[in-house]
Amino acid sequence: MHIAEGLHRAALTNRNGIAYVDQGAKRTWIEMQSAVRRLTGGLVSKSVAMGDRVAVLASNSARQLECFYAIPSLGAITVPLNWRWSDREIADAIKDCEPAIILADTQNLSRVAGVAQSGIPVLRLGDDTDRLIADSEERAPFDLDAGSTAMIFYTGGTTGGSKGVMLSHRNIVTTAIGICAAFRLPSRPAWLHLMPMFHVGDGICSFSITMLGGTHVFIDRFDPVLVFEAIQRHRISCTNFVPSMLSTLMNHPERDRYDLTSIERVLYGGSPIPSELLAHFMREFKSWQFFQGYGMTESTALAVSLPWEEHHLDGPLAKRRASAGRPMLGVEVRIAEDDGTEAPDGEVGEILIRGDLVMTGYWRRPELTRQNVRDGWLHSGDLGYRDEDGFIYIVDRKKDMIITGGENVYSTEVEGAIYAHPSLVECAVTGLPSDRWGELVHAVVVPKEGAALSSSDIIERCRTYVGGYKCPKSVTIRYEGLPKSGAGKILKKALREELASQSELA
Amino acid sequence: MHIAEGLHRAALTNRNGIAYVDQGAKRTWIEMQSAVRRLTGGLVSKSVAMGDRVAVLASNSARQLECFYAIPSLGAITVPLNWRWSDREIADAIKDCEPAIILADTQNLSRVAGVAQSGIPVLRLGDDTDRLIADSEERAPFDLDAGSTAMIFYTGGTTGGSKGVMLSHRNIVTTAIGICAAFRLPSRPAWLHLMPMFHVGDGICSFSITMLGGTHVFIDRFDPVLVFEAIQRHRISCTNFVPSMLSTLMNHPERDRYDLTSIERVLYGGSPIPSELLAHFMREFKSWQFFQGYGMTESTALAVSLPWEEHHLDGPLAKRRASAGRPMLGVEVRIAEDDGTEAPDGEVGEILIRGDLVMTGYWRRPELTRQNVRDGWLHSGDLGYRDEDGFIYIVDRKKDMIITGGENVYSTEVEGAIYAHPSLVECAVTGLPSDRWGELVHAVVVPKEGAALSSSDIIERCRTYVGGYKCPKSVTIRYEGLPKSGAGKILKKALREELASQSELA
Repeated sequence: MHIAEGLHRAALTNRNGIAYVDQGAKRTWIEMQSAVRRLTGGLVSKSVAMGDRVAVLASNSARQLECFYAIPSLGAITVPLNWRWSDREIADAIKDCEPAIILADTQNLSRVAGVAQSGIPVLRLGDDTDRLIADSEERAPFDLDAGSTAMIFYTGGTTGGSKGVMLSHRNIVTTAIGICAAFRLPSRPAWLHLMPMFHVGDGICSFSITMLGGTHVFIDRFDPVLVFEAIQRHRISCTNFVPSMLSTLMNHPERDRYDLTSIERVLYGGSPIPSELLAHFMREFKSWQFFQGYGMTESTALAVSLPWEEHHLDGPLAKRRASAGRPMLGVEVRIAEDDGTEAPDGEVGEILIRGDLVMTGYWRRPELTRQNVRDGWLHSGDLGYRDEDGFIYIVDRKKDMIITGGENVYSTEVEGAIYAHPSLVECAVTGLPSDRWGELVHAVVVPKEGAALSSSDIIERCRTYVGGYKCPKSVTIRYEGLPKSGAGKILKKALREELASQSELA
Repeated sequence: MHIAEGLHRAALTNRNGIAYVDQGAKRTWIEMQSAVRRLTGGLVSKSVAMGDRVAVLASNSARQLECFYAIPSLGAITVPLNWRWSDREIADAIKDCEPAIILADTQNLSRVAGVAQSGIPVLRLGDDTDRLIADSEERAPFDLDAGSTAMIFYTGGTTGGSKGVMLSHRNIVTTAIGICAAFRLPSRPAWLHLMPMFHVGDGICSFSITMLGGTHVFIDRFDPVLVFEAIQRHRISCTNFVPSMLSTLMNHPERDRYDLTSIERVLYGGSPIPSELLAHFMREFKSWQFFQGYGMTESTALAVSLPWEEHHLDGPLAKRRASAGRPMLGVEVRIAEDDGTEAPDGEVGEILIRGDLVMTGYWRRPELTRQNVRDGWLHSGDLGYRDEDGFIYIVDRKKDMIITGGENVYSTEVEGAIYAHPSLVECAVTGLPSDRWGELVHAVVVPKEGAALSSSDIIERCRTYVGGYKCPKSVTIRYEGLPKSGAGKILKKALREELASQSELA
C-alpha cells in the first residue's frame, strides 16, 4: 500500500495512454512516471528526507499531480495549500507544518516571498521543477510502511480553526479503491479536474483515476464555457461537482451548443444538495449517472455514497434523493446518541465513522485527535439519521443546529424547503440570538438576477413544507453570493459573524 | 477490517432483503445476522475459543455461509474441507489443522465418524446447529486484529501435497472489495453459487455478495437444468463458472427454453480458457458480460482480472481474449526471470504477486511459507508474460512446462491449438519421458459423443497453428472426462501418473 503503486500500475497497463492534458501539454503514463521519479530524485538531491513536509501552493495542474506522487515516493509528506487563503492563513499553515521546501506556481510565488526570508527554500513549480526533473536521475519509490503519512490536508471544516489532517498511504489507497467500487468507475476514465486538488474531494479522486490508467484533464479555472469545451473535446467520462457548479452549468445559455454526452458518471457532494434541485439536474442532464458522496477530510474524503440506481425521480423511493446513501464498502457508520449508544431508526444522532479511511490524526495535535477519534471511531460532528432501509440522511452540522423555543431545528431541512422556491440561486439558514426563543430561525437568500423576492414570500412558501416553528422568523435578501470555503461549502460561521456585525451597526 | 462487518452492512442496508434462497428456505439479512450471532454464541458455549480451528465438511448451503461468518466472529478459524476428497485426505487435513470441533452436513457426517472417536466433537450442520442457534444468545463479533487468521483453505494446487493456506480478515475483506471494483458488481446482486464454497473462488466471492447486501442462491448440484431454472426463477444477475461448466450449459439442448437474460456478469477462471472457446461463449450468450479472474488460494483467489470491455471478438485486440488481464487495484504483479530480475515485455517468467491479498502463510509450515513468500512477494509457480500494453498472459504452470529437444513448450499453448478442433470436449497436453527428446509432447483428448477422432487428425490440425516441435508426438483418445480437482482444474499430475502406469502395463 504505497500511493506510487497506482502510478506504476498506470505506467505498466496503459504505458502509451495519455496521462494528462494541461493547457495543451500532454504526457503518456510512462513519461509521467519517469518525470515523477526524476522529481523524486531531484527532491532527494535538495536534501528532502523521509518524514519532511513539502508544501505545494498552486492551482490545479499536472505539475501538482506529479508532486502528489514524487513527494510521498521518498517518504516525505505533501502538504497542498489553499491559494484562496489570505497571506496570513498561508503563513500560519507553513508555520504549523514547517516544510523543508515550498513549491509554488508562478501565480502564487509572490505569496510566499515573505516565507522565503525565514530560510525555507522556495522553488517555482514550473521552471525550477522542470529543470530539476531534467537534471535528476530517476529514483524508484522508497519502501515505506503503509501507515506512514503521505499527505497533510489543512481543513478548517466549516467551524474555523484550520488544522492539518494526516492521511497515510493506506488511507489514500484504500479510499481510492473504494471510490472505484462505489462509483463503478470504468477502465481508463477521462477525468476533468474541476474542484481544487488542495481539497480531498478532487485530491483523492486523482489517485483513483491514476490507478485506473485514466486521463487527467485540467482547465484554467471553473468557467462554464471552458468546462463545456473540455467535456466535448476530451470526451470526459467522469468528473465531480459541488451543487453550485451544476446549477451554473445547467442555467448557462450556451449549454445546448455542446456535446456533453460522453459523461457517464458525475460525483457530487461537498455540501448537501436540495432534493428538488437534484431532480432538476437529473431531468436536465438525462444521460449522466449521478453518484453522491459524503465524507470529510478526516475520512479521506468519502465514507458514504448513493449510487445512481437509488436516484428516483418519483414514487415512494424518491425520498432517497435526500439521502447521502450507504457506507462505502469496508466502512462502518454509526448514528450515536449523546451517551454513545446507537440511535434507533429515524432518530437523529452524531455520525461516527470507522475503517481504514479514518485519518491517522491531526498534525501535532494529539489532544484534538483523541477528542475526535475514540476507539477508532471518527466523530464527524455531523448530525444524521438512518432510515429503515439503512440509508443515511445528513440533517446538519452539530454546530449549525438551531434550538428555538426548546425545539431542535435542522438548518438544512429549512433550506430544502426554501429551495423549492423557483426564484432563488442559493440560501442559508442559521440561528440568531433571541431573548425570547433562545435562537430564532433566520434565512439568507440570494435571488436570481431580476427576480422579485420578498421575506414574506419566502416565509409563506416555507410554511407549506415544514412546521411553523421551523420557518424563518426573519429573512435577509442578499444580492451577492454567500461566503464559501475553497470546497464550495457555505461558511455559516462567517455568515453568522456578518449578520452579527450588521445587527451591531443597525 | 473484520469479515463480520460485511454481514453487518447487509443487515443495516438491506435489512428486509433476501439474504439467501436454499432449497426453498429463505432468510432476510436481519434474520441471517441474528442466526449468525446466535451460532457464534453457541460455539462459545461449546468452548470454541479464539484461534481454534473449526472444520466444516459440507455441500454448498446457506448453513455453510452462516459458518463463514459465525466462526471468525469469535476469533476462531473456519476450515472448509473438500468433500470430494478421499476419507484418507479428509483425515489428513483434520490431523493437520486439529479442529476444536467439526461441523458436517448429513451427507458427509459418516465420513468423519472415525474422527469422532479421536475425541473431536462432531456436530451435524443441520439439526444440531439449528438447535444451537435456537438455544443461544446473540454474540456480537469480537474485536480482532485485521491480520488475524479468519479461514484456512486446503490446497493441493495442481502439484499435490495438500497444505493449509491461512487467510486473514484483511486478506478477505480487501479482496472482496477488490472483486466489487474489478467486476463492477451492481448493488444487491443475485448470486448463484455453482462452484464449491470450500474453494476460494466461490468462497471469497461470497463475502463480496454479502457486503453488497445481495442474495445468495444455492442449488443442490451442478445440473444444467437446475442451473437454467435457478437463473430464470431468481433473476440471477451474477455468477462464476469454470470453462467446462460454460461448455456444458452452452451445448445443452434445453438451453433456449429458459430466460437467461437476467445475467449481467459472468466471472470465469479457475483454469485457462482457450481463446476460441471464449469467443464461442461470447457469441452464444450475447447479453452476458464476461469477466476473467486469475489467481490462486495463496492470493485470496484473485490477483489479475480482464474486464468485459477487453473481450474483443475480432480486430487487433482480439488477442486479449487469451490474456488473464491486468492486476486488480492495489495488487502488484511482476514477471520475474530466474535470477529475480523483471522480464522484458513478451518474455516468459514466473508470476510474482504482492499486496494485501497475499496469504499470511501456510498453516504450521513456516519453511514452505518462506520459500513461497519472499520480501512480501508470493511466488506463484505460474509462468507468464506481459505484453506492451500491460496485459498478462499465463503460459503454463512451471511444473507443466515441457522441455523437448532443448525447446520449452508451454502445454497450454498446444492445448489452445488442439481446442480449435470442433469435435472434442476437452484435452490436456503433458510431457512423457523420452530417451531421445528428454520429454516428448503428448496429448490426451476426449472426443464429443459420437465424434470420430484420430491421432493423426489432431496432430495435423495442430500443425496449422503452432510450430512442429510443439505438436504432440503421440495422442491418447479417451472416452471419460479428465481427472479434475474440486475447483474443476485438470490434474496433470494425476494424468501423468495414469499415463505412466498404463505404459508400465503395456
